[in-house]
Amino acid sequence: MADKSSTVVEMDRNDPDIGLGTMPVLIEGDRVLLLDQRKLPEETVFFDATDLDDMCFAISDMVVRGAASIGVAGALGLACAARQIATTACDSEEFTAKLDAARIRLNATRPTAVNLTWGTSLIFEEAANLSNQEPGYDRIKVAESLKSISEKLFAMAVKLIDEHTQDNRRLSEYGAQRVPENGRILTHCNAGSLALCGWGSALGVIRSAHLMGKNVSVFVDETRPRNQGSKLTMWELEQDGIPTTLICDNMAATLMAQNKVSMIVVGADRIARNGDTANKIGTYGLAVLAHFHGVKFYVAAPLSTFDPDIESGDEIQIETRDAHEVTEICGRSTTIPSAKAYNPAFDVTPNRLISAFFTEAGILEPPYLESIHGAMARKSKARQ
Amino acid sequence: MADKSSTVVEMDRNDPDIGLGTMPVLIEGDRVLLLDQRKLPEETVFFDATDLDDMCFAISDMVVRGAASIGVAGALGLACAARQIATTACDSEEFTAKLDAARIRLNATRPTAVNLTWGTSLIFEEAANLSNQEPGYDRIKVAESLKSISEKLFAMAVKLIDEHTQDNRRLSEYGAQRVPENGRILTHCNAGSLALCGWGSALGVIRSAHLMGKNVSVFVDETRPRNQGSKLTMWELEQDGIPTTLICDNMAATLMAQNKVSMIVVGADRIARNGDTANKIGTYGLAVLAHFHGVKFYVAAPLSTFDPDIESGDEIQIETRDAHEVTEICGRSTTIPSAKAYNPAFDVTPNRLISAFFTEAGILEPPYLESIHGAMARKSKARQ
Repeated sequence: MADKSSTVVEMDRNDPDIGLGTMPVLIEGDRVLLLDQRKLPEETVFFDATDLDDMCFAISDMVVRGAASIGVAGALGLACAARQIATTACDSEEFTAKLDAARIRLNATRPTAVNLTWGTSLIFEEAANLSNQEPGYDRIKVAESLKSISEKLFAMAVKLIDEHTQDNRRLSEYGAQRVPENGRILTHCNAGSLALCGWGSALGVIRSAHLMGKNVSVFVDETRPRNQGSKLTMWELEQDGIPTTLICDNMAATLMAQNKVSMIVVGADRIARNGDTANKIGTYGLAVLAHFHGVKFYVAAPLSTFDPDIESGDEIQIETRDAHEVTEICGRSTTIPSAKAYNPAFDVTPNRLISAFFTEAGILEPPYLESIHGAMARKSKARQ
Repeated sequence: MADKSSTVVEMDRNDPDIGLGTMPVLIEGDRVLLLDQRKLPEETVFFDATDLDDMCFAISDMVVRGAASIGVAGALGLACAARQIATTACDSEEFTAKLDAARIRLNATRPTAVNLTWGTSLIFEEAANLSNQEPGYDRIKVAESLKSISEKLFAMAVKLIDEHTQDNRRLSEYGAQRVPENGRILTHCNAGSLALCGWGSALGVIRSAHLMGKNVSVFVDETRPRNQGSKLTMWELEQDGIPTTLICDNMAATLMAQNKVSMIVVGADRIARNGDTANKIGTYGLAVLAHFHGVKFYVAAPLSTFDPDIESGDEIQIETRDAHEVTEICGRSTTIPSAKAYNPAFDVTPNRLISAFFTEAGILEPPYLESIHGAMARKSKARQ
């Protein structure tokens, strides 16, 4: 699918959303605008993803990225699809069938993050509930009813943004307790507001520690091949006035050997019941290095990232992306034209290398099978 | 110092030097031409470094790079300087003093590799020996004598190229014994013919194993920030028809966890008496990962890389290079304009993480203090 031209929206520096967590999604009336993360830090440009095709493109091409933001984008994408389908569907059966097809398309855009299917399932199940209550005889009434259902779904998807921000702030305050005064924190990729749809997880912890006056500074892994560290994390932290030093991924070991790293905190894309964690490629290596050097290695993630359906990391499907992401940088080849490359987008860190998880339900310690189960049970009970 | 325009020389594909180790240095009559490694793999262009200023620029800007190649370049640079000085010096004292100044300039171009000072010292000591024998009264005789000395020095420097190639072939044959059939070898940076001034050390081992029919394949770390892996190693191995897969540096851990790496072999820039090894940034992290995964980690290096004057890695000075190498890729910024970055060019791998050293005097095993001392003593005895 070809890229569509982006909608350029000037950012208002007085907007309270700018700084301390810039939002990756903007709702303007009926429109869903995504901050185009491919173009940061050079340009702050929004991509109109109100249409299902455009949202599918936006997720797979990483206009929007990060597990939680993808989840919200999936939910918004399906809600927008519901609005489109509602205008043509003859009855609730057709509505549901077409919505299911849209859900399948959205789920296929990125295979690793659990949040994507979580977001689309939330909307799809609610749609099924609501449309089951409709009689489906009178064409006009059906159309009105489907329209009203789709508006409810859209409102539900929009509400997720606030819920995420609140969850992230909560988990960040827990995590910040573990940040030492003058902490020099190493992070990988971007687990910030952009990725987590508000405040952030790993960067949320850093933000909350910063607001607590802990005088933190951050080593930012550039995070090859897509450079989310150098592009996005450096950009987010600059807006908050938090001191950063950019490094190449292969320099982290040396910093640890020099005792320059107080702790490591990263986000997660999917966490198994036992705590095995899929996150951006390079995370696993960092965890091994932290283990070797006796540096604490924390994972900050909302409970929506924990997948109760998988027992261990062995069951996590790892997305392999196109070789040109490795053979090119910023569109320029760095190697011979015939180069073959391997490009797994994620890796899996086994639970034993993780010091603790920071979640909105508190800090989870080993044994993780129990602590994760407990936190998820408490959350699900609180919802009822 | 501004870059000078390069001399474009078409490469002859039938030249026996092309493939299985392309030479980084060409001697054309009195001229010293360096294969411009900054421009590979896109262009095979030579840089005329016959002049001392140009050679200093070529070493510091990495037209020529790799410990051994820098050593030969330093020797050639000083020999060329001797020719220049010989045309104006009034006596051997002035000749030696000016040559000493040239040596100091050359040594300052890159601080980490021991080979640079080794190369310049070799020429300087020979110059001091030869010029001490001269009476220095008759101006014409002095000029003739200094000219003859400088030609001897140049011939001595040129001879180093052959010596390096022979040493590298010898160490590579030792190393290849440790390569398993169908070995999948991971390497970092470029320790090939380009870096080692003929055949190569780490890539030499791979070449020799390939020639022995061991059906090897190679995972090549791209080696940020300067991408010597993606640019140079991929290029060298393609010429030899050895199968390669390019990876980002942060993917190595995952390959090891998947049991896809049979062994790791890297080169070295400076090795202490106890075996602590300075090599391209990222090497130390790889060694820790190899240790964790039970993968053999070998260092291939000629004895000229071993520095008998330093006891341990603590004494090795690590060059810190400009931040823009990290903040830019191929001249394009990957981050915010105000980004601060850390850019150590090398790291030090402690001896206990190294499985063995491959040298022209054989395979050196722990305890390294003894085996390294023994090998150097044997080599020095053989020279007498």
